[in-house]
Amino acid sequence: MARALQLAALGQGRTSPNPMVGAVVLDAAGQLVGEGFHAAAGQPHAEVGALRQAGERARGGSLVVTLEPCCHHGRTPPCSEAVIAAGVSTVVIAMEDPNPLVAGGGVARLRQAGLTVIMGVMEAQAQALNRAFGHRQRHGRPYGLLKWAMSVDGRTALPSGDSQWISGPAARSWVHELRAGCDAVIVGGGTLRADDPLLTSRGRREPEPLRVVLSRSLALPAQARLWDQSVAPTLVAHGPGAAGTWSADGVETLPLPACEPLALLEALHARGCNQVLWECGPELAAAAIRQGCVQEIATVIAPKLLGGEPARTPLASLGLERVQDAAVLETTPPVTIDRDLLWTLRL
Amino acid sequence: MARALQLAALGQGRTSPNPMVGAVVLDAAGQLVGEGFHAAAGQPHAEVGALRQAGERARGGSLVVTLEPCCHHGRTPPCSEAVIAAGVSTVVIAMEDPNPLVAGGGVARLRQAGLTVIMGVMEAQAQALNRAFGHRQRHGRPYGLLKWAMSVDGRTALPSGDSQWISGPAARSWVHELRAGCDAVIVGGGTLRADDPLLTSRGRREPEPLRVVLSRSLALPAQARLWDQSVAPTLVAHGPGAAGTWSADGVETLPLPACEPLALLEALHARGCNQVLWECGPELAAAAIRQGCVQEIATVIAPKLLGGEPARTPLASLGLERVQDAAVLETTPPVTIDRDLLWTLRL
Repeated sequence: MARALQLAALGQGRTSPNPMVGAVVLDAAGQLVGEGFHAAAGQPHAEVGALRQAGERARGGSLVVTLEPCCHHGRTPPCSEAVIAAGVSTVVIAMEDPNPLVAGGGVARLRQAGLTVIMGVMEAQAQALNRAFGHRQRHGRPYGLLKWAMSVDGRTALPSGDSQWISGPAARSWVHELRAGCDAVIVGGGTLRADDPLLTSRGRREPEPLRVVLSRSLALPAQARLWDQSVAPTLVAHGPGAAGTWSADGVETLPLPACEPLALLEALHARGCNQVLWECGPELAAAAIRQGCVQEIATVIAPKLLGGEPARTPLASLGLERVQDAAVLETTPPVTIDRDLLWTLRL
Repeated sequence: MARALQLAALGQGRTSPNPMVGAVVLDAAGQLVGEGFHAAAGQPHAEVGALRQAGERARGGSLVVTLEPCCHHGRTPPCSEAVIAAGVSTVVIAMEDPNPLVAGGGVARLRQAGLTVIMGVMEAQAQALNRAFGHRQRHGRPYGLLKWAMSVDGRTALPSGDSQWISGPAARSWVHELRAGCDAVIVGGGTLRADDPLLTSRGRREPEPLRVVLSRSLALPAQARLWDQSVAPTLVAHGPGAAGTWSADGVETLPLPACEPLALLEALHARGCNQVLWECGPELAAAAIRQGCVQEIATVIAPKLLGGEPARTPLASLGLERVQDAAVLETTPPVTIDRDLLWTLRL
């Protein structure tokens, strides 16, 4: 299963709207005879690839797979049928498929066909790997990551607006890596106007994540790096009242029922996004948190003092009156990225 | 020398204005026959204690000491004479005494008397242990630590002023420990009015550090925990223009030539402080940094989101215009204190 999870992770950032899945096949003597992983939506599922590689050697052997094989016709035929046809006698599965179209149906089909099914092997690791997919299945919207870089005195910019660069080159390169695991990267109009960001993974993900601007006013610059669609696709989402006359060649615009984080995530869910990255300013970030659109925060803390008033900080108001009302968040151990510190928190 | 450094550290927080010093004596056969450390100003120096314990067994042996023995008459007679009188043949020293009254004079005296002197053994560790003493000798003012606790979004309080508690009990207990290593703990009038702090080491240091309020206006509350002198001494320092009519039983007041961090540190230097802790609000903290009164920052980062505008942050303005003008500070690896993160930076 550890190997199957390794294989699954090879699909990182490219399987949406599907989960990452890895599989290995052992013959009747316990020899590894096939490996497979889901490389991208529309491509063969992991089980099918592994069984194909194993061929006749799968007969009487075992399939080890990180997610319950599907039992419905999607873009590909149901995997449970392929597993049965391959003649394996045992199927070892890490976790049930949270997709309501499957949700135990695949396991039931295998058992009905007389196969031995063992569930829950390394389940925690499998759940963690596909936490975004699982979240989306349960909540009907993508898993939200929020990332910010700040000085150790809590500043994301100087009062002058200058913010380049607070973190060092290694941490900025890590952000490209983070984007590569996401289907969309979201900023507000303010960040676009202030920073003219590129928002790509610098080639770490193919295709690049969708770059999304959530703009209340559509008062957007005529020239911006985001408008160059040869680099990566861009979507400009806006609320019903946006009166701007802005347009840019090839850039898609999307009217939302409300210019709010939740409405945007629902639209991105409909487009098959499993995971999105908020790289926005304090107002939009706070709104996203308040609407439950952020599940995880990655904060890069730079060993610099910026100071300055009014203070530019990662978050605007969360509406708290008392410190004791602030939740103590679950964290992962801090890591240093060259000179900077990375701390990740779960909401 | 490692043992001598261990012994030296036993004096932490109690030797000011003197340095921490530890010493061991080995007999001619290399057996450990004496140990000593400087426990408090006015008490015997480390070498004298160790030599006294060794007695006649020191003759022909070695003295290992973390700091050059003194050669001047202070509250105690010069140690170099005691070392010579004890008859040791070799003296191993970690670092020269930065005190201009010594500064190599002790070593010269020992060599002149025919002893073998080996300098610089574990010097970096010895310098680090006495960095506060060394700083004070070189700069004529105490070593400044600045501590703040903030939420991971850079807040030290909510807009309502509520700040209790951002960090957890373990981190707050660590702050008591930090105070125990300092001779004075400094706040401004604003922190006093907002938080009514106690500012003690909770008995970890005996006597408690001096509690200092730097007040521009002397508009101080009649009742405050700092005014209870049975707990710890308090000093109220103020500038020449302070017109307040405030006074409290037994609390000393000190007029400064200017109501500024540097003027305060010069006064605390004159009182023999090696190390002070700034636990003040953003204005005074920024002023202390700008005047070079802070050598080290200890920041406790809590896994909480507070938000709120205007943002209450650790520092007011440092006068920076561009991010690239902010220095990249030297740091120590982050440590977790229960749920909180502690990151230390050198200025």
